[in-house]
Amino acid sequence: MFLSKKGMIRIFLRSCTRLQLLQNYCKAETHQKMANSQFDYVKSFESMDSCLPNCWIVVRIDGNNFHKFSSKHNFKKPNDDRALGLMTRAARSVMELFNDVVLSYGQSDEYSFVFKKGTKTYNRRSSKLSSVVVSQFTSSYVYHWKEYFPDLQLGYPPAFDSRTVLYPSDKNLRDYLSWRQADCELGTLSSDKNEILFSQFGINYNNLPQLHRKGTVIVRDKVTYASRNALRKEPDDKRSKAQSMLLALNIDIIGKQFWEGNPHILAA
Amino acid sequence: MFLSKKGMIRIFLRSCTRLQLLQNYCKAETHQKMANSQFDYVKSFESMDSCLPNCWIVVRIDGNNFHKFSSKHNFKKPNDDRALGLMTRAARSVMELFNDVVLSYGQSDEYSFVFKKGTKTYNRRSSKLSSVVVSQFTSSYVYHWKEYFPDLQLGYPPAFDSRTVLYPSDKNLRDYLSWRQADCELGTLSSDKNEILFSQFGINYNNLPQLHRKGTVIVRDKVTYASRNALRKEPDDKRSKAQSMLLALNIDIIGKQFWEGNPHILAA
Amino acid sequence: MFLSKKGMIRIFLRSCTRLQLLQNYCKAETHQKMANSQFDYVKSFESMDSCLPNCWIVVRIDGNNFHKFSSKHNFKKPNDDRALGLMTRAARSVMELFNDVVLSYGQSDEYSFVFKKGTKTYNRRSSKLSSVVVSQFTSSYVYHWKEYFPDLQLGYPPAFDSRTVLYPSDKNLRDYLSWRQADCELGTLSSDKNEILFSQFGINYNNLPQLHRKGTVIVRDKVTYASRNALRKEPDDKRSKAQSMLLALNIDIIGKQFWEGNPHILAA
Amino acid sequence: MFLSKKGMIRIFLRSCTRLQLLQNYCKAETHQKMANSQFDYVKSFESMDSCLPNCWIVVRIDGNNFHKFSSKHNFKKPNDDRALGLMTRAARSVMELFNDVVLSYGQSDEYSFVFKKGTKTYNRRSSKLSSVVVSQFTSSYVYHWKEYFPDLQLGYPPAFDSRTVLYPSDKNLRDYLSWRQADCELGTLSSDKNEILFSQFGINYNNLPQLHRKGTVIVRDKVTYASRNALRKEPDDKRSKAQSMLLALNIDIIGKQFWEGNPHILAA
Repeated sequence: MFLSKKGMIRIFLRSCTRLQLLQNYCKAETHQKMANSQFDYVKSFESMDSCLPNCWIVVRIDGNNFHKFSSKHNFKKPNDDRALGLMTRAARSVMELFNDVVLSYGQSDEYSFVFKKGTKTYNRRSSKLSSVVVSQFTSSYVYHWKEYFPDLQLGYPPAFDSRTVLYPSDKNLRDYLSWRQADCELGTLSSDKNEILFSQFGINYNNLPQLHRKGTVIVRDKVTYASRNALRKEPDDKRSKAQSMLLALNIDIIGKQFWEGNPHILAA
Repeated sequence: MFLSKKGMIRIFLRSCTRLQLLQNYCKAETHQKMANSQFDYVKSFESMDSCLPNCWIVVRIDGNNFHKFSSKHNFKKPNDDRALGLMTRAARSVMELFNDVVLSYGQSDEYSFVFKKGTKTYNRRSSKLSSVVVSQFTSSYVYHWKEYFPDLQLGYPPAFDSRTVLYPSDKNLRDYLSWRQADCELGTLSSDKNEILFSQFGINYNNLPQLHRKGTVIVRDKVTYASRNALRKEPDDKRSKAQSMLLALNIDIIGKQFWEGNPHILAA
Repeated sequence: MFLSKKGMIRIFLRSCTRLQLLQNYCKAETHQKMANSQFDYVKSFESMDSCLPNCWIVVRIDGNNFHKFSSKHNFKKPNDDRALGLMTRAARSVMELFNDVVLSYGQSDEYSFVFKKGTKTYNRRSSKLSSVVVSQFTSSYVYHWKEYFPDLQLGYPPAFDSRTVLYPSDKNLRDYLSWRQADCELGTLSSDKNEILFSQFGINYNNLPQLHRKGTVIVRDKVTYASRNALRKEPDDKRSKAQSMLLALNIDIIGKQFWEGNPHILAA
Repeated sequence: MFLSKKGMIRIFLRSCTRLQLLQNYCKAETHQKMANSQFDYVKSFESMDSCLPNCWIVVRIDGNNFHKFSSKHNFKKPNDDRALGLMTRAARSVMELFNDVVLSYGQSDEYSFVFKKGTKTYNRRSSKLSSVVVSQFTSSYVYHWKEYFPDLQLGYPPAFDSRTVLYPSDKNLRDYLSWRQADCELGTLSSDKNEILFSQFGINYNNLPQLHRKGTVIVRDKVTYASRNALRKEPDDKRSKAQSMLLALNIDIIGKQFWEGNPHILAA
């Protein structure tokens, strides 16, 4: 390619301009770095909050001011099937993000996520785990709303809170989950009791769907679970298939049966 | 009103059925309460995490894996105006929820929320503050997406993390905010510098919009601020007007000028 | 009894004086209480630091600047039998104060105290446990000095630091104690190795007393342990007898043998 | 020097023995190091507990079960001058150990130690500061007992507890100290009030020594304070002189006067 003299000069001048700019940027950058270093001592005010090793880490999220939210959207009381479905959809999304969540349990407007004892996720930093879980959950809740409420516009963006709790032993963890499930049954019972007192028609508790009485436990399919490591190196479509192998069950988790049938959970 | 004998019997029997049901519910409830009390010792594993009094509480949220998220949605680098606008929309939503947030500052995929020193919100519980802020932010981000990206479907639900940091003195707080703003300028500079190195055309840093160079600070309008307490007892439409009096500014907050012009912020 | 008029007047006047004084005191007290209440908000700055339930609580104390202290008092290196004896005497004193310490292990200038998993001592407050342990230990160390160093005056008051560490499982606890005992053997080995390098005469490690190689573990006598509860209601002399049933052993606690022979310790 | 053949052989053989020993030690050391490394993961169970920067760090020690201790040693109630003197002697010892303690205040069986805001001692680790303070205090208390109770044998080793509290602002710190001093006055008042009620003779509160009414504040002599840095490089005898320049005062620290007269304390 031939370049005219004029062309060469133009290119030369343009280069000069860019060089000058670059120099200015570098100068400004140095200046900024110095300015920055004058302030960055404030980083030392952040505290480490690593969870004690060898403990089950439970992150529980809970609807913030959901009394108002469920009224506003006319949720059926005490249990709205669409709302419960959406909660479980959001919980799945959390379990897809965190492979180390071995089980989650939800009822009403709350969900608990159990990280395996030895998880190294985010170096076990409590606030990091707690915040990403609640953020992912909320995000997914809003994102999937229209699938569960096709005829009802989301009125305003809802919020959840979250907390991290540690349980040292398997028994403590099981008791925690039993506590939440017993709370679910109690809540449903009380609601229906009040229903009878104030309305014409009672509903027989024994006929209530398990969803309302037992809440929802999500576990990873045993087969998938076993082959998960193998799949880690597989192409994306296979992985997403594996990740979707999450089973949502409405069963009793207080008794032995569930745990004896799923020994891989506590062995995690 | 007259009731036939048959009618009376029907009503009587119906009452009996409801009474029986009620009795069953009460029995079951008692039983459940006992079951529950066997497990609720696990509540004691939750820890108190109240923030030290008389300190500025800063909650900073940060995009989780936003490198992927911004690629996926073709965000302009280093600053995408639509994305920045959406961040600020979500931040407003947090400030509408928490009257005690006196200022927030954002840049790139992060936002910091400053609660006033004496706030009693959630009894200053760190995880509660941190989680509701990040949840409200995320919720609002997804909810308002389409207003900022009318032509682009949200590909998947994004997540943010959050942390709580305490700053004892006004100087510490100002240095924290200066640190974040200096980081903003530095980030923009470095990006543009690399742009020059690899592309044909440089952009003059001085011509960059203040939005990119300074980030965004949101404060409450002084007038509104003063009359906020008065408005607390006002009807809802007036209040929402007051709450919308949030000013988003793209100005320097490192120097004295901003703080001298807004003495009510540090006096909060 | 007869009282002269003068006597009665004297008593009357004395009463009046006392009444006046009392009144003044009450006034001053009210005033002080008000003054006090103006300041006592500062109590809220203290933080709760309860240990996670169902974890072994270990308080480890460690000589503060004992390099200087052992030089000053010409301690034999690496192990001075009198100094080790005094350490163990001080450790006993801690175990006499805290019935919930089920085992303690010491070597060199450190001692670890293991509180049983379910201890309710001081409501499991970490700083309270940690501080009273180190204070009692130090107090006893100075108090009993002359029994172990009859010919050597204590040169100055020594100090120890302390920390609280939680171990969720029995295995974690045993590994902790193994870590300390392996450290003891390693320390002794290294010292003697250096001894050989620089001196004329080596000492055969296998001939070293177990005290130096294994450190000291203090446990409660099984019989005493079993009958402790019974003794709680016994007269003081019996109790002190029970409390003195602390066995100091210089044996291996890394292997299984010790733990299988003393199952009551981990069952605590 | 001549060596007989026999002598040479003896030396040679001795060397061989030592070499063999050394080899054995090195082998054993390597083995031990491996054993140790199998356990030292337990170190990760220890938690960081650095104090928030830019806050006053107060360590308060308090007699543990001193009701019994003061009965046992017949302390005069509510204030025993010898016991108070010993407390202050022990407090001095803490201030001699920690140059960063700018003030201490004591009354009854408690003492508070104020570390300057910016102290780097032990990297501001809460448990380390708290434990060494209480250990040094206790150690000194037992060590100096006989100087204050020449005719009374120490009956048993006493213990103290300690805690760390943070105060972000100078006002918070002053209010803390005012709270303790107001408590001192209140305690003395109440005691004397009860004295009047039950005894024949009242004591006029205004005549009570300041020691009882105000407690004891220990500060560093201003002159010494100023020249402390200079003295850092001085020989030991000069330093100890400087360190002994601690003033114990029985004065009001609630009002402004004390603080205006000693501006160097809060400026620390």
